Amino acid sequence: MSERFSFDLHASDGKARTGVIHTPRGGVRTPAFMPVGTAATVKAMMPESVRATGADILLGNTYHLMLRPTAERIDRLGGLHRFMNWDRPILTDSGGFQVMSLAGLRKLTEKGVTFKSHIDGSKHELTPERSMEIQRLLGSDIVMCFDECPALPADRDRIAESMRLSMRWAERSREAFGDRPGHALFGIMQGGLEQDLREESAQALRSVGFDGYAVGGLAVGEGQAAMFDCLDYAPGFLPEDKPRYLMGVGKPDDIVGAVKRGIDMMDCVLPSRSGRTGQVFTRHGVLNIKNARHMDDPRPLDEACTCPACRNYSRAYLHHVFRSQEIISSMLLTWHNLHYFQEIMQGMREAIAGGTFEAWEAAFHAGRAQGDIEPL
Amino acid sequence: MSERFSFDLHASDGKARTGVIHTPRGGVRTPAFMPVGTAATVKAMMPESVRATGADILLGNTYHLMLRPTAERIDRLGGLHRFMNWDRPILTDSGGFQVMSLAGLRKLTEKGVTFKSHIDGSKHELTPERSMEIQRLLGSDIVMCFDECPALPADRDRIAESMRLSMRWAERSREAFGDRPGHALFGIMQGGLEQDLREESAQALRSVGFDGYAVGGLAVGEGQAAMFDCLDYAPGFLPEDKPRYLMGVGKPDDIVGAVKRGIDMMDCVLPSRSGRTGQVFTRHGVLNIKNARHMDDPRPLDEACTCPACRNYSRAYLHHVFRSQEIISSMLLTWHNLHYFQEIMQGMREAIAGGTFEAWEAAFHAGRAQGDIEPL
Repeated sequence: MSERFSFDLHASDGKARTGVIHTPRGGVRTPAFMPVGTAATVKAMMPESVRATGADILLGNTYHLMLRPTAERIDRLGGLHRFMNWDRPILTDSGGFQVMSLAGLRKLTEKGVTFKSHIDGSKHELTPERSMEIQRLLGSDIVMCFDECPALPADRDRIAESMRLSMRWAERSREAFGDRPGHALFGIMQGGLEQDLREESAQALRSVGFDGYAVGGLAVGEGQAAMFDCLDYAPGFLPEDKPRYLMGVGKPDDIVGAVKRGIDMMDCVLPSRSGRTGQVFTRHGVLNIKNARHMDDPRPLDEACTCPACRNYSRAYLHHVFRSQEIISSMLLTWHNLHYFQEIMQGMREAIAGGTFEAWEAAFHAGRAQGDIEPL
Repeated sequence: MSERFSFDLHASDGKARTGVIHTPRGGVRTPAFMPVGTAATVKAMMPESVRATGADILLGNTYHLMLRPTAERIDRLGGLHRFMNWDRPILTDSGGFQVMSLAGLRKLTEKGVTFKSHIDGSKHELTPERSMEIQRLLGSDIVMCFDECPALPADRDRIAESMRLSMRWAERSREAFGDRPGHALFGIMQGGLEQDLREESAQALRSVGFDGYAVGGLAVGEGQAAMFDCLDYAPGFLPEDKPRYLMGVGKPDDIVGAVKRGIDMMDCVLPSRSGRTGQVFTRHGVLNIKNARHMDDPRPLDEACTCPACRNYSRAYLHHVFRSQEIISSMLLTWHNLHYFQEIMQGMREAIAGGTFEAWEAAFHAGRAQGDIEPL
């Protein structure tokens, strides 16, 4: 247990890296996948179950928490960790991205953004300074700079203008964050799919200096090929010795492709959201439990999986409780999906440490190409 | 672990009794509260969590399971225990009561009842013989006779006629059940609030002979005082040496009053359903977590409770996740309520064994009279 925030790289294999982020609340093994606990809960999961899947760190959403129950209330109650019963590291986003995707009546200025709550229509303001304050009140271990991010495709001028605004906000975030031993502030690189803008953004962030660096503005509609093209160069603009975080990614093959290109951390709602809609990820690809083919199937989702859904239940049961809209359906499928995502991360960490990432990746893709088991 | 079904009475205190029902799937400590697992799940709970609350036995609903996923399918999949991952005893109701309360286009004859499914409108028939077959296919440890039950108030002729039909069905149920070592068949006494009809019903059941006896037709709108009046005499008409089961009861004070009057087993959806609507039962009565008074309250629901909701979360958190319609709200509140109900049962079992039931009951009522803790 470190009292400072630090990052130790243990091994690399090609561009892929493995290591540990040390925080006073425990280590984060990288590459790391962070389940999303939007409103102070990873939906349908107890925090001890999230931990049992292998998660070292959660993501919390500033936008949701500032609106309900409010950052000030969480602070009075002892901080987000205590509030939601998760004593390991928490990373919080800055609220910027979700204001743009969820809030109403947004108004963007140099100072920040004003908007109306999607919950009750109340008016709010987020600025770099306020975002830093909220994330401090929440007690976040890894704080993200306040930024702005255009959906892709967008024209180059819009992307450049937005990136430069985000870089000015990054400086203000750094200033407002101050010196908080044991807590980290991450900068967020922007620049869309424009290599020179990505480089300019990285330079701006490096000249300020952060504890880690995110690649922002991807997974916003550009498609996997374009994202990978960008990831072929973007991580290289960032410091070797700091964690690199790809925000909002992704599907299993997105995650593997990102790690291959030098990414250390990711987050996504996909495994938990899919758990509630019946979409299941396994070594053999994707299946949908609501499909009638599972109705009489006594086999588990994946016979090799050690999660409770696979150890204790048939596809027939999971189909039944999904069709019956029973809560246990969301509980079991979310658990399975999170378990599978963490298993991918563990597999990659071991492969990178052993210098066998290429073989691991080939096996990963071969398993998916097989497709789901044949119906009985 | 017994290979036969049997009931050992260990102690009594006044009319209250404590003992153990032995089954090949494990013992059931009495007085026992059975959580309801309607559609092969106790809503919002993992079965291992239900067990952790102290439950020895679950109730499954024949009506729901025959419609979806069907008894034949559950049989092909290895039975209800394996299907829902609960290896301890299961009691199933006969389907009769729920056909009357949930199904459409019911037609009642001497033979049985035809009805339309509330799920998809398909037509079905339940008879004593079919109910026995379904409960056998499910693999139920304690099977209930198929019966009919009028809502109260009802006139005496209707109650008498219905009771006598149920007694003829009880004979047919006994005949159809046959000899199934390790499995029990319970008769159901009817007769509304008419003492002589209750006695006639009990005599009819005793002359057939069952492994246990339920008091049916209560908790159907008559109110607690009328129910207790009936329970002052009805259990006395039943054999001393067999378990007595009061169906569909109830609130904590209903349960305590029933045990005081000689009841050994009960079931009710109240703790689990209330968990989903925010109603919480504690030693100090009832509270509703959606009330704004809990919004800033750092205290647990009950500081003396050892359930996960009380050990790990504030009222403020539980209020927040309830208001945010997060699934963990149902998970935690259901767990708490089931834990509290089982704690009442454990308290009564110990008090009866120690000959201190009266003092226990006085303390139970005194705690409730206090009401919830004062707002901060």
